[in-house]
Amino acid sequence: MNILFVGDVFGSAGRHIVREHLPHVVESNAVDLLIINGENAAGGFGLTPSLAEDLFDLGAHVITTGNHIWDKREIFDYMSVPADSHDRPRRVLRPANYAHGTPGFGFYQGALADGTEYAVMNMQGRVFMSACDDPFRKADELLSKITAKVILLDIHAEASSEKVALGWYLDGRVTAVLGTHTHIPTADERILPMGTAYQTDVGMSGPYDSVIGVEKELVLQRFLTGMPGKFEAAKGNPKMCAALIHCDPTTGRAHHIQRIMLGE
Amino acid sequence: MNILFVGDVFGSAGRHIVREHLPHVVESNAVDLLIINGENAAGGFGLTPSLAEDLFDLGAHVITTGNHIWDKREIFDYMSVPADSHDRPRRVLRPANYAHGTPGFGFYQGALADGTEYAVMNMQGRVFMSACDDPFRKADELLSKITAKVILLDIHAEASSEKVALGWYLDGRVTAVLGTHTHIPTADERILPMGTAYQTDVGMSGPYDSVIGVEKELVLQRFLTGMPGKFEAAKGNPKMCAALIHCDPTTGRAHHIQRIMLGE
Amino acid sequence: MNILFVGDVFGSAGRHIVREHLPHVVESNAVDLLIINGENAAGGFGLTPSLAEDLFDLGAHVITTGNHIWDKREIFDYMSVPADSHDRPRRVLRPANYAHGTPGFGFYQGALADGTEYAVMNMQGRVFMSACDDPFRKADELLSKITAKVILLDIHAEASSEKVALGWYLDGRVTAVLGTHTHIPTADERILPMGTAYQTDVGMSGPYDSVIGVEKELVLQRFLTGMPGKFEAAKGNPKMCAALIHCDPTTGRAHHIQRIMLGE
Amino acid sequence: MNILFVGDVFGSAGRHIVREHLPHVVESNAVDLLIINGENAAGGFGLTPSLAEDLFDLGAHVITTGNHIWDKREIFDYMSVPADSHDRPRRVLRPANYAHGTPGFGFYQGALADGTEYAVMNMQGRVFMSACDDPFRKADELLSKITAKVILLDIHAEASSEKVALGWYLDGRVTAVLGTHTHIPTADERILPMGTAYQTDVGMSGPYDSVIGVEKELVLQRFLTGMPGKFEAAKGNPKMCAALIHCDPTTGRAHHIQRIMLGE
Ligand SMILES: [Fe+2]
Ligand SMILES: [Fe+2]
Ligand SMILES: [Fe+2]
Ligand SMILES: [Fe+2]
Ligand SMILES: [Fe+2]
Ligand SMILES: [Fe+2]
Ligand SMILES: [Fe+2]
Ligand SMILES: [Fe+2]
Repeated sequence: MNILFVGDVFGSAGRHIVREHLPHVVESNAVDLLIINGENAAGGFGLTPSLAEDLFDLGAHVITTGNHIWDKREIFDYMSVPADSHDRPRRVLRPANYAHGTPGFGFYQGALADGTEYAVMNMQGRVFMSACDDPFRKADELLSKITAKVILLDIHAEASSEKVALGWYLDGRVTAVLGTHTHIPTADERILPMGTAYQTDVGMSGPYDSVIGVEKELVLQRFLTGMPGKFEAAKGNPKMCAALIHCDPTTGRAHHIQRIMLGE
Repeated sequence: MNILFVGDVFGSAGRHIVREHLPHVVESNAVDLLIINGENAAGGFGLTPSLAEDLFDLGAHVITTGNHIWDKREIFDYMSVPADSHDRPRRVLRPANYAHGTPGFGFYQGALADGTEYAVMNMQGRVFMSACDDPFRKADELLSKITAKVILLDIHAEASSEKVALGWYLDGRVTAVLGTHTHIPTADERILPMGTAYQTDVGMSGPYDSVIGVEKELVLQRFLTGMPGKFEAAKGNPKMCAALIHCDPTTGRAHHIQRIMLGE
Repeated sequence: MNILFVGDVFGSAGRHIVREHLPHVVESNAVDLLIINGENAAGGFGLTPSLAEDLFDLGAHVITTGNHIWDKREIFDYMSVPADSHDRPRRVLRPANYAHGTPGFGFYQGALADGTEYAVMNMQGRVFMSACDDPFRKADELLSKITAKVILLDIHAEASSEKVALGWYLDGRVTAVLGTHTHIPTADERILPMGTAYQTDVGMSGPYDSVIGVEKELVLQRFLTGMPGKFEAAKGNPKMCAALIHCDPTTGRAHHIQRIMLGE
Repeated sequence: MNILFVGDVFGSAGRHIVREHLPHVVESNAVDLLIINGENAAGGFGLTPSLAEDLFDLGAHVITTGNHIWDKREIFDYMSVPADSHDRPRRVLRPANYAHGTPGFGFYQGALADGTEYAVMNMQGRVFMSACDDPFRKADELLSKITAKVILLDIHAEASSEKVALGWYLDGRVTAVLGTHTHIPTADERILPMGTAYQTDVGMSGPYDSVIGVEKELVLQRFLTGMPGKFEAAKGNPKMCAALIHCDPTTGRAHHIQRIMLGE
């Protein structure tokens, strides 16, 4: 079974490059399960219902997100659906370790057309980030409820230490632990000893002639002066970053992980 | 001209793997200039004079460091040498944007045997790190003093945004901007439009069956309980991470950058 | 009913000034319930069993702490007692919102000699501090278990916003919300509209010719150079800082809060 | 000579309470020099030129600010005046340790009607705040240029340690070191041994039935959910917080400091 996870789609450049490459990547790799992190799809900041629909139209089974999930308020209502729904809005996740009562859900369990069950968990780190619940214990809690063997975690976090630690913590208990949020792909993809695919950061799918997606002049101005200024999504040098995982659907253990970075 | 930069050497596992691979990498790539980040050489925490000497014995022209530089106090005196010295202690750098009066120096300019001048700058980021001076303006200041064309910057920083921004800021003004500190190599090595080689993080040279170098059980315990506990360097799965840069010594512009990760 | 809460006892200077003033303050104010924050009693960093015993000998019913609780390892075993114990070790608290499985407890419910029940909760903030569980929801959870009317919370936190917010959140539900950790007393003591006594920080009981307890030259050196150096407790100008609360034991509502700062 | 420093004026409630009390406080205390921190005057977030003019109309000689200075963009141009100007816009300060090239100035030296020279410095802390230059060394640098004996520093900072350390660092070199930013007055006002008046935080002049100025329900919602939401200035329970300092104008040394908190 093949799983494709696409890193943070950033702005229109990110959406275009994903639209360009996804069909042939999915087809040529016989992708069964497609997950896309969409937290930056809307101009770099958040996700709207209509952009979520676009990502589902591209074939996404689940959309994960992160700290930018609430940037666009239209998404609040969209994500407010019953827990047992399997409709698209139920398959847009926010980190599971956000406060109780936050709109939406942090994990989803569904089944592919052939009946194979899968689950996706979304979590946020706590090091150098806003306060949220313990992602290690939240993972334990979610895993106790999940019956699927094929389980993927998007750990949206800043610190490499926290992501790596979570990878070891879940090794052998999930199919893949994939990091997002730094917007830079890491070259440490591997299968951990107990069969969990791991990569510290998948990297964004967006404009790489930028500072992690944003127009570089605007970010440089911020670093140089500390003064406010509107951040706008850059356009140049778009690349789609993704991780392709091959796993055994009966055990959920991963056999192979491949890093993908495709440009124009 | 070929430059090899070796990422944070971590503990004995890091020292061993570097000692194993460095000779053949240097020889097969005709490396002219060798720079090693040694901030974690001493058991993961700091650098001693004798370990610095070992790295120089391996052929390092310059040793860069970062936030762990003061972990071992023996290094204070070792680094306290005249600014115009070219001896080994003068070639152990700490971030240049540390406070005025801190022992040692943040940049070094020297010449290879064939007379080619080169300079190495070491800088620390400010996002999610201890307070230090502005690395952008400090780079400007150092560049105004440097006469060498071949210039390499080790930017020791946590946030991908700050490293990427500094890469763009210095594009065309230095030969290479290479990140360190996260201990995870990134897959974004490239030559920026104006000829500067760039990689967000070179990755550590150390034990990858660990949490960024430290025994994983100890770090997991810290994450799970928040309780103190001695951190010890791990041993398993050592890899040497480095970046190999080819540049024109007359202009200092880079033509090629290659990511290297070598295990046992 | 009168409650005295003594702010972070810092080092020997703090212990001495508390020993000097506590007897007459307790007597002259007819204090019924005495709570002391002892997180810095041991040379400024942590609390030992023997120093905890000393504070109990002074009449403390409960000792609260904060982020320094684990600095002295001897306290781990001391605090590892059954939840239903009423012995002294059970009455040394660590923040209740620390990770599940951490030694000790974050709240205590007991009764005075006259049968009046009281409860003490200890909580840590999350803004600018290490990750821990949500103090707001943890307070809700503890309050659902507490049967006492007289309830005091020591909120050990950095940010004024978080402490003030918690005060409002618990107004009318606890007798007092008293802040600790910044080591500087605030002049905002008041009775909130629903009857909860509040003060953002009670201030430390320690040497005020210092930087929040530590020898000022050592801290200045740290600020000026960023270099490591042992921090030692200062001695000069000791003051005991405390808050005295008068409340109705039948309702738990506070009628009066008075800030106390007593020197030599 | 008498100096009055008024803490962060927050929103309309702050402006009203200051307008109500300032005339009689100034008159009854024979205030010679009036300084007001205005960073939150505009609805809690920033300062407009017209609100700056209002504060000058109330008699302010200098307006200091802090991290909220750039919240209202109209202030950029207003503050862009020649360094040697003595007009009102030149007397609106932003932290002196902001990046070089930032609009405005971080200190002002002027003279009272009787010819007494005075200087005001504005600085921002670095602990738990955005990166800026070293406030300790920046103070040294400014003091080397200042000829006035009467010198006041508004240190706008989060951490008590940094403010206290700066107080000791400047003791005997300036008339007063007064903290702002936490919006809660501290009860540690004192004259340091070498004659510098010190208070860790003067406290805001604003609505105290709030969370540091903002409507408490809005802040609680943020703490409880982590979700965005517009912050609005509260109105209830306004108080003017200030520090009144008596000093010798010929030496600049302070003899007395008094904390002031005046409500409706
Ligand atoms: Fe993102
Ligand atoms: Fe993110
Ligand atoms: Fe390192
Ligand atoms: Fe480092
Ligand atoms: Fe403390
Ligand atoms: Fe503390
Ligand atoms: Fe303020
Ligand atoms: Fe502020």
